[in-house]
Amino acid sequence: MSTDTSAEPNIFERRESEARSYCRSFPTTFTKAQGSVMTDAEGNEYIDFLAGCSSLNYGHNDPDMKAALIEHISNDGIAHGLDMYTAEKAKFLEAFETHILEPRGMDYKIMMTGPTGTNAVEAAMKLARKITGRKNIIAFTNGFHGMTMGALSLTGNAGKRGGAGGGHLGDVTHLPYDKSLGDTDTLELIEAMLENGSSGVDAPAAFIFEPIQGEGGLNAASKEWMEGVARLAKKHGAMLIVDDIQSGIGRTGTYFGFEHTEIEPDMITQAKSLSGFGLPFAALLIKREHDIWKPAEHNGTFRGNTHAFVTGRVAIEKFWADDSFQKELAEKDALMKKRLTEISEIVPGSRLKGRGLMRGVDVGSGDLAGEICAKCFENGLIIETSGADDEVVKVLCALTIPTETLNKGFDILFSAVRDCVPAEQPMAAE
Amino acid sequence: MSTDTSAEPNIFERRESEARSYCRSFPTTFTKAQGSVMTDAEGNEYIDFLAGCSSLNYGHNDPDMKAALIEHISNDGIAHGLDMYTAEKAKFLEAFETHILEPRGMDYKIMMTGPTGTNAVEAAMKLARKITGRKNIIAFTNGFHGMTMGALSLTGNAGKRGGAGGGHLGDVTHLPYDKSLGDTDTLELIEAMLENGSSGVDAPAAFIFEPIQGEGGLNAASKEWMEGVARLAKKHGAMLIVDDIQSGIGRTGTYFGFEHTEIEPDMITQAKSLSGFGLPFAALLIKREHDIWKPAEHNGTFRGNTHAFVTGRVAIEKFWADDSFQKELAEKDALMKKRLTEISEIVPGSRLKGRGLMRGVDVGSGDLAGEICAKCFENGLIIETSGADDEVVKVLCALTIPTETLNKGFDILFSAVRDCVPAEQPMAAE
Amino acid sequence: MSTDTSAEPNIFERRESEARSYCRSFPTTFTKAQGSVMTDAEGNEYIDFLAGCSSLNYGHNDPDMKAALIEHISNDGIAHGLDMYTAEKAKFLEAFETHILEPRGMDYKIMMTGPTGTNAVEAAMKLARKITGRKNIIAFTNGFHGMTMGALSLTGNAGKRGGAGGGHLGDVTHLPYDKSLGDTDTLELIEAMLENGSSGVDAPAAFIFEPIQGEGGLNAASKEWMEGVARLAKKHGAMLIVDDIQSGIGRTGTYFGFEHTEIEPDMITQAKSLSGFGLPFAALLIKREHDIWKPAEHNGTFRGNTHAFVTGRVAIEKFWADDSFQKELAEKDALMKKRLTEISEIVPGSRLKGRGLMRGVDVGSGDLAGEICAKCFENGLIIETSGADDEVVKVLCALTIPTETLNKGFDILFSAVRDCVPAEQPMAAE
Amino acid sequence: MSTDTSAEPNIFERRESEARSYCRSFPTTFTKAQGSVMTDAEGNEYIDFLAGCSSLNYGHNDPDMKAALIEHISNDGIAHGLDMYTAEKAKFLEAFETHILEPRGMDYKIMMTGPTGTNAVEAAMKLARKITGRKNIIAFTNGFHGMTMGALSLTGNAGKRGGAGGGHLGDVTHLPYDKSLGDTDTLELIEAMLENGSSGVDAPAAFIFEPIQGEGGLNAASKEWMEGVARLAKKHGAMLIVDDIQSGIGRTGTYFGFEHTEIEPDMITQAKSLSGFGLPFAALLIKREHDIWKPAEHNGTFRGNTHAFVTGRVAIEKFWADDSFQKELAEKDALMKKRLTEISEIVPGSRLKGRGLMRGVDVGSGDLAGEICAKCFENGLIIETSGADDEVVKVLCALTIPTETLNKGFDILFSAVRDCVPAEQPMAAE
Repeated sequence: MSTDTSAEPNIFERRESEARSYCRSFPTTFTKAQGSVMTDAEGNEYIDFLAGCSSLNYGHNDPDMKAALIEHISNDGIAHGLDMYTAEKAKFLEAFETHILEPRGMDYKIMMTGPTGTNAVEAAMKLARKITGRKNIIAFTNGFHGMTMGALSLTGNAGKRGGAGGGHLGDVTHLPYDKSLGDTDTLELIEAMLENGSSGVDAPAAFIFEPIQGEGGLNAASKEWMEGVARLAKKHGAMLIVDDIQSGIGRTGTYFGFEHTEIEPDMITQAKSLSGFGLPFAALLIKREHDIWKPAEHNGTFRGNTHAFVTGRVAIEKFWADDSFQKELAEKDALMKKRLTEISEIVPGSRLKGRGLMRGVDVGSGDLAGEICAKCFENGLIIETSGADDEVVKVLCALTIPTETLNKGFDILFSAVRDCVPAEQPMAAE
Repeated sequence: MSTDTSAEPNIFERRESEARSYCRSFPTTFTKAQGSVMTDAEGNEYIDFLAGCSSLNYGHNDPDMKAALIEHISNDGIAHGLDMYTAEKAKFLEAFETHILEPRGMDYKIMMTGPTGTNAVEAAMKLARKITGRKNIIAFTNGFHGMTMGALSLTGNAGKRGGAGGGHLGDVTHLPYDKSLGDTDTLELIEAMLENGSSGVDAPAAFIFEPIQGEGGLNAASKEWMEGVARLAKKHGAMLIVDDIQSGIGRTGTYFGFEHTEIEPDMITQAKSLSGFGLPFAALLIKREHDIWKPAEHNGTFRGNTHAFVTGRVAIEKFWADDSFQKELAEKDALMKKRLTEISEIVPGSRLKGRGLMRGVDVGSGDLAGEICAKCFENGLIIETSGADDEVVKVLCALTIPTETLNKGFDILFSAVRDCVPAEQPMAAE
Repeated sequence: MSTDTSAEPNIFERRESEARSYCRSFPTTFTKAQGSVMTDAEGNEYIDFLAGCSSLNYGHNDPDMKAALIEHISNDGIAHGLDMYTAEKAKFLEAFETHILEPRGMDYKIMMTGPTGTNAVEAAMKLARKITGRKNIIAFTNGFHGMTMGALSLTGNAGKRGGAGGGHLGDVTHLPYDKSLGDTDTLELIEAMLENGSSGVDAPAAFIFEPIQGEGGLNAASKEWMEGVARLAKKHGAMLIVDDIQSGIGRTGTYFGFEHTEIEPDMITQAKSLSGFGLPFAALLIKREHDIWKPAEHNGTFRGNTHAFVTGRVAIEKFWADDSFQKELAEKDALMKKRLTEISEIVPGSRLKGRGLMRGVDVGSGDLAGEICAKCFENGLIIETSGADDEVVKVLCALTIPTETLNKGFDILFSAVRDCVPAEQPMAAE
Repeated sequence: MSTDTSAEPNIFERRESEARSYCRSFPTTFTKAQGSVMTDAEGNEYIDFLAGCSSLNYGHNDPDMKAALIEHISNDGIAHGLDMYTAEKAKFLEAFETHILEPRGMDYKIMMTGPTGTNAVEAAMKLARKITGRKNIIAFTNGFHGMTMGALSLTGNAGKRGGAGGGHLGDVTHLPYDKSLGDTDTLELIEAMLENGSSGVDAPAAFIFEPIQGEGGLNAASKEWMEGVARLAKKHGAMLIVDDIQSGIGRTGTYFGFEHTEIEPDMITQAKSLSGFGLPFAALLIKREHDIWKPAEHNGTFRGNTHAFVTGRVAIEKFWADDSFQKELAEKDALMKKRLTEISEIVPGSRLKGRGLMRGVDVGSGDLAGEICAKCFENGLIIETSGADDEVVKVLCALTIPTETLNKGFDILFSAVRDCVPAEQPMAAE
């Protein structure tokens, strides 16, 4: 393993900004990747339990997408199309319509917002304010929505917010997410704040939440809570925005992270795995009646990343044309839960977090979680922490990971946890 | 030409948000593109005088970049690498250091900010505020910096600002750009506002300007003005941010749009043509001493678009390893100026705008400019307007456009202008 | 009674802004007032249970203050002294030091902020932000702190906030006041929001609360809650600001509204009854170590309302030099509670609100409360509602009201309530 | 003279906040005042060229107002009336209607905003935003409008703005005031910023300016400039707010500071000398059609300072019932100009500032101006500086000052200037 620092590539230290982050946890230089395995310059292989933070839900270099992309490039297909009409965009939209929207009875317009999640979030914020004529947006504790000033105002993390250097992060009310206050029913609290005409919480333009909070610690909102928020949004004339960037596109076992609920979001953000191949691509789904944008009122140079349309279209056709993929996901979900339960049992005071294939274990301290992940990397597993104090060991493997690889990864994780949990702990429990 | 509306692809009208824009000017479906020629589904060819709004400075599907990218993909090279170390990122950084920074005596750190220009602008704003502990940023009339809330607060256009739906676009002072007030020396005015302790203009964290305002109407700041702003920034303890997203990467005849000046920006934004191939890629160049970011204090999922590192590296090595490309650019610059002068002469009251290969003609009205561009499209030329009232016909061809194609494009443009300018005008001047 | 509208004075309708309010509830023209009785132009007398919203805690035209003020004016004493030194300001400060601060072991500086409560609140906000370098101020649901933009940002009422016409009311987090969420311990909730580094609630510059919320519905915070907030403020490095404008100066039975607690506010706002005579006068008490103002950094033309210094000094010397006044207050408090309990018993579902001589009955609906107050006015009692929905009938009589007058006022109120409560209600309970 | 510091009253140092200011320039304790003479505790008399910063336009303790006020108090007249109808408010409004509004053909509603200038400014800002649905207010360099957060956002002075401790001072565009940029026509510049749809200056809710900037350095706007701003406001659908707090109520020789122009402000702020006696009193005049306030949408405890209604009514009846007072003012204006010209002639590089009885001399440096004022105080004259750098010696005597006293004051000032201007200066010019 190339973890000794002398092997660390000098060009990065010399020229890349100190803002760089993941590379500090995984100090090696990667050269290739296939499926759920990444390879570094020295030929070491790593099982990938990070999957581009859910941007690689179909794994690295899916062969069908890869073939289609190579063919497209070989034929001088458009790479950058601004937001002009291209054959590939048409095909992507048709696939999205046919396999995603129509089977779910969803009538949404698709807005190309610029290719990053934060572009989509910002577009949603702007549109919600335009529609309602209100400014206040209700976001939730531990939410993460992006790093540009609008999306950052929605984001809870103090360190990230501090990065704004004192710039304005207002016009947002942060209220407690589901189950974030012990036994207190946060929905009642939210309702009380909204119904009290003297609460100081201005009438909201929108509510925005993640079905499962990825960065915030794999907190999964209950069906009832999501439906409650949707009901409040409707009652108070606010847009319901579901930020499904990390939880969507199969991550919870269904295409959207809220499919098991009755909610009908006014807007849904999509990014990360939308291209299927890890290419920058984001979109905002807007209920037809809310698409009141004027031409170019929101734009962006890279709205037409045509390579992403090609791979994104293949992803939809390959995985979402029937229900076979979802069935696989259900099996992996069960396996994942089982393996994480085993791990949780050997960490006193720990608890399972998340839902579907977006799961982890809160081990109680950021130090311990960091130590576990570092040990995993030494043993060939790429895995990261999340949560306000980095206290959750988070498993975000590719949805397509072979069962064997998944088990192998969990074996490494289990060993690391056992090594890191203090010896005097109740190993007897095993 | 597929301009009759029955041929317009229904899927876009049915499913793409009304925010879409360029497709309205160029109502056909493109299928492929090579160099400076785009081809639509019916086989019509168009000369491209738009070049992805300066994102395709090296033309479509440059063969060397294309070959390198296909090879990379074929070998299962990393597509999405978060901000982990990859061999391709190392090579890109090395090329940037060797061929861009070192020859120009520039010692900058490179921050991967997320792959869109607006990500880079937002990162610059945050960092300037962090460094100085101040909030106010001075931006300029007719400036365009992006559509997320931070970058939008810097942007002048009322329509774009209106898209924010009343969200906060503050902590910015907009002052008049060079030559924007007739004969008034705007530098003196800016200085007066800053030196007056009761002007109400709070001490600035930064100044941000574009060397040439692309969206704002191809307004080119003079050397003296840019140097004056740099002097004021230094004097008042403010960061100097040059937004070189549209004007950089060869567009003005040199790599950066300000190389002919003495200024040393504290930060430089790069995007659009940075990947060389039109792929989403942006970066912020930060003077070494200002790189005070904490790890992950600004981040973003698509900071590691490795395909873009591959093509971006090829672009640098191919075009910037010696001065031959710059020499070509100087020739094209002269040709462009000559052809635009001819055009300007047949439009009464018109005037040339811009500098380098970022030029156009202010024809005095948005209606006329729009009519000219529409006529060009009918005749096989893709060209757009810019300016507060869309009054400038803007030429943003690929820098690599063959002279013959360039002349052919100008011929179409000249004809269109002649057709659109009212008959009683002094055609005798010809 | 001059309640028929033909008697309403035309000059007001003709020339006074529609913003006028109390005059709509009490449509007659007052000409004089003594103690707790106001007299109108037709000679009708009204018992005053409003007392200038607690600005006339010592009643109208207290004879000692009146004599001192007439003497001062007769001698050409200063009326307006900017913030120059005057003999009367010295005497006021000495009395405040001797009879208010020193006996309570309080070491505060006194800032003349401008003569209205909102001036004092704004000064406190500014100073807290200067001291801490933070922007966020935590205010509470149903709080009322004033109508200028800073104070209004702290105020909860949606109607008042709407008056800002969309101006910025940010940099404030509104959290639930004591007992505002049924059985939920709001202190725990506040603590949870502050201790969660990803809550989105930025580190606070200050907490500001009213010991009893006057406009918000006579909600009285418990001793434990106030002490809890004080503890949280200290722990999180935030200033503790007590807005004692309505609850202070004897209103709760002690000079300050929080004297029964262990809290030591960093700042205390004083206004309303500070002059004793109803003259505009406000001040901010600042713990000595926090008085970091630079000269004139906050100022205001009417900081030196010398008439108010004269009457304010007399008020302190007359009522606060020994404990006899406080003993009287304790007796009236008991009487008031008894009489309000009787009233509450005949209003099904009603409940007592407030503490000390700042009490009322929540009758469950604004319509009913309004009807009761209108009926009282017809019968010679001036009394108003408060609360988010105007649902509380509020008694704010002068602290000096004679017991007989107090009882007479309550008799009118009791009758009005009995008349207004629907007949089929359990009158049998009497 | 009690200027040695041992004589400085200890209670102020011990208990009054460091924010205190004027007392530092005039370190003695005042005990009484009549007309234009103030007397301190040691019996020293001072001619008052400050007049409560224009709050004592009719001098101290005008005998008619004094008599009326004593009578009112003696009769138990209302002191504090909230905003209930009182006989004294009616009489004040009638006098204002009869002697101020009607003779000038002005149809305005009068809003009692709270008794300080900043209350009136804040009310104007809120109303302008409500009416227009816009947020941006255009204010001017060197403007001073108050110290609460709304008014402070309009104020130019960096020191005052710094007092906000980083609180939000936005939604305001500061543009250059008349003649503030040498020969540049600032009106053209303002127009250019407004007419350029990409200037970044959002469509304004209002323009607010002072006819003469009191704190900003006695800058007097020309008739043409004021009319130009009025024209721009009308053209752009913005409210025109004239802040006449310091320049109004006779100060420029007419009741309003803009009577010599053709402008018809949508709102006019009044404070300072409105009570005539130096008592806290402010109002907002609102063109009838703009009085869209809902009841109590803006309020304030001290809107009904009835003492001020009494003296304010006497002031209007005494000074504004015919044109004799205005004629006197014209004479004093001429005298003042003559005496200041003499002074200016002995200060190299100095220049006259202001208009009417709001005049001064810019002596070129704050140090010199401060030295002059200190010397004046030693010799029995109270006079202050103004301007961004305190570089203007400002004469704001009572409008009622006897000619003899005025001349005596100017003699002291002339001597002080002569003593302070460096010896080698062209004294020969005398």
